[in-house]
Amino acid sequence: MSLTYRDAGVNIARAEDALSKVRDRIARTRRPEVIGDVGQFGGLFASPGADKVLVATTDGVGTKVELARLLDRHEVVGADLVHHCLNDALAMGAEPLFFLDYFATSKIDPAVFSRVVGAMADACAHFGTALLGGETAEMPGMYAADSYDLAGFLVGVVDRAKILGPERAREGDALVGIPSTGLHTNGYSLAREICTRRAMHERSASLLDVLLAPRDELEGATLGSALLAVHRPYLTEFRALRDVADVHSIAHVTGGGWEGNVPRALPEGMAARIDRESWEVPAVFTLLARLGELEEIEQFDTWNMGIGLVLTIAPDALDAALAAVPGAVALGTVVPHSGGRRVIFG
Amino acid sequence: MSLTYRDAGVNIARAEDALSKVRDRIARTRRPEVIGDVGQFGGLFASPGADKVLVATTDGVGTKVELARLLDRHEVVGADLVHHCLNDALAMGAEPLFFLDYFATSKIDPAVFSRVVGAMADACAHFGTALLGGETAEMPGMYAADSYDLAGFLVGVVDRAKILGPERAREGDALVGIPSTGLHTNGYSLAREICTRRAMHERSASLLDVLLAPRDELEGATLGSALLAVHRPYLTEFRALRDVADVHSIAHVTGGGWEGNVPRALPEGMAARIDRESWEVPAVFTLLARLGELEEIEQFDTWNMGIGLVLTIAPDALDAALAAVPGAVALGTVVPHSGGRRVIFG
Repeated sequence: MSLTYRDAGVNIARAEDALSKVRDRIARTRRPEVIGDVGQFGGLFASPGADKVLVATTDGVGTKVELARLLDRHEVVGADLVHHCLNDALAMGAEPLFFLDYFATSKIDPAVFSRVVGAMADACAHFGTALLGGETAEMPGMYAADSYDLAGFLVGVVDRAKILGPERAREGDALVGIPSTGLHTNGYSLAREICTRRAMHERSASLLDVLLAPRDELEGATLGSALLAVHRPYLTEFRALRDVADVHSIAHVTGGGWEGNVPRALPEGMAARIDRESWEVPAVFTLLARLGELEEIEQFDTWNMGIGLVLTIAPDALDAALAAVPGAVALGTVVPHSGGRRVIFG
Repeated sequence: MSLTYRDAGVNIARAEDALSKVRDRIARTRRPEVIGDVGQFGGLFASPGADKVLVATTDGVGTKVELARLLDRHEVVGADLVHHCLNDALAMGAEPLFFLDYFATSKIDPAVFSRVVGAMADACAHFGTALLGGETAEMPGMYAADSYDLAGFLVGVVDRAKILGPERAREGDALVGIPSTGLHTNGYSLAREICTRRAMHERSASLLDVLLAPRDELEGATLGSALLAVHRPYLTEFRALRDVADVHSIAHVTGGGWEGNVPRALPEGMAARIDRESWEVPAVFTLLARLGELEEIEQFDTWNMGIGLVLTIAPDALDAALAAVPGAVALGTVVPHSGGRRVIFG
């Protein structure tokens, strides 16, 4: 039966071919600190000084990859992965240094791979982040046909004195929100379940029919395109805010929604009092909530509901902060916590 | 139909529960450079000085996870993941600093998760590496039932003057090999395909029957246990060698086998002349090769064949190197490359 590795479904030449298609775009992410070439056993990056602190984050994009695959929008999740990591790092006050990716699938499709990893490289280049390495895993039988998964890893840097965190926030701090572009990379299993159930409800409708139907609520756009908006990167806005305001702490509103993330930016014993009228929940959320008949608390515990980043800042800097970032919202105030939930909508 | 995120198959409490089981073991990986607590948006680690170079690696464990799952040996792949990353970092001359993991599955089983991530934490603690963060992704429908995938990210550090690499190696260098413990984390799709075909050949044998049959070639042990030997970490051996010999470059023999990795430790225009008699290929490889009727070249292009790490060192340090690491082998010599393959077995 003389077997080969290729017979077993693993084709190393295919992985090499896939990588060669994006080598130029990866090369454009190079920074002066990068030493040597891609393809070493480890990526080399000159260390910042000992007065600095490294910030390391790892993220995936959840089942948004399934939607990207279904609608042939692979670039979206590549950019998402980088942006998600960037946002987690800036939540600690960090500027990005370098990024690595993990791409796993049952059978590498070089065209899909190059679209995903090419988009990662472009996102890295845009934000001055070196794409320092990656792992491409071909794992026959592990993933559903054409499915793939992604993990990203980013290291950033912050001055020791400028690390953000809940211990810097205090009672009376202003809470500033920056709008999201949609679900970002969170709560897609719920969104997909809503669409799937909707398809079952409607006579002879498929999931694609539900995703591709023009929606009045979305001004004629489709749920599919709304769900595949790119996870917004907040680095530019973070830099602008940092320049004009004393930022104390930041919550990136991802898995776990508001209650799962905003308290991570609050000191012990404090809560966030949020004015629900301070921003309008985007139509993609209200549409999904209507289709799924979701309780409001379930929505806020799962999705970002239109606000992807929440910052605590010194109250006297509020006006400057709002002026520095178009669309930024005065959400509310840090208040003492009196038991129960720590995000209080009033 | 009032849906919840939980209805859609995502249970954040389950992920929290899973993590709580291993928090103590993660805490034991803490190093003095770690700042703040686990659970921040990014892990904080005091930067080494500006005279140092960071080394970043990312790896998976391939379809060995499927075998670990089938034989209920989840700890193995947790340790494997850390060791694989450690070995890639030391191939550049680096000592480990911190590690992050990505764990993805369709439905989190807290018991399995805690066994996998607990084993990662223990491996990190053993080698003084901080487990600085991780991402646990519950992705309904993406993975086959009970399947999960792992990715690891490690950052290490090396003095700028001590970075290893192919440009340091030269003609006449001695090639030193250190034994592997088996397939490590590479070529499992081929090994599994061999076992699956074998099961089809034998009357009413299942894959498990093939994996669990005692084998004379393995002195009564099973293929299952041989295939689930832990990927050997080489950090202790690397340190010992570095102390006694001028190590020039290192190849970690993983995906792509000998021809895919040994040349990565050689300068341009050079090849590795290897004495095939200098070590005995372990029985797990010869058994698999016999069952699969594999060509020898296919074996060496896929598996490590019993040597997991290949080092180039100054020739006058060979005796000291062999004395410093029990089991180390004088494999051969760096020679001019005269076309064709760069690993020449003589």
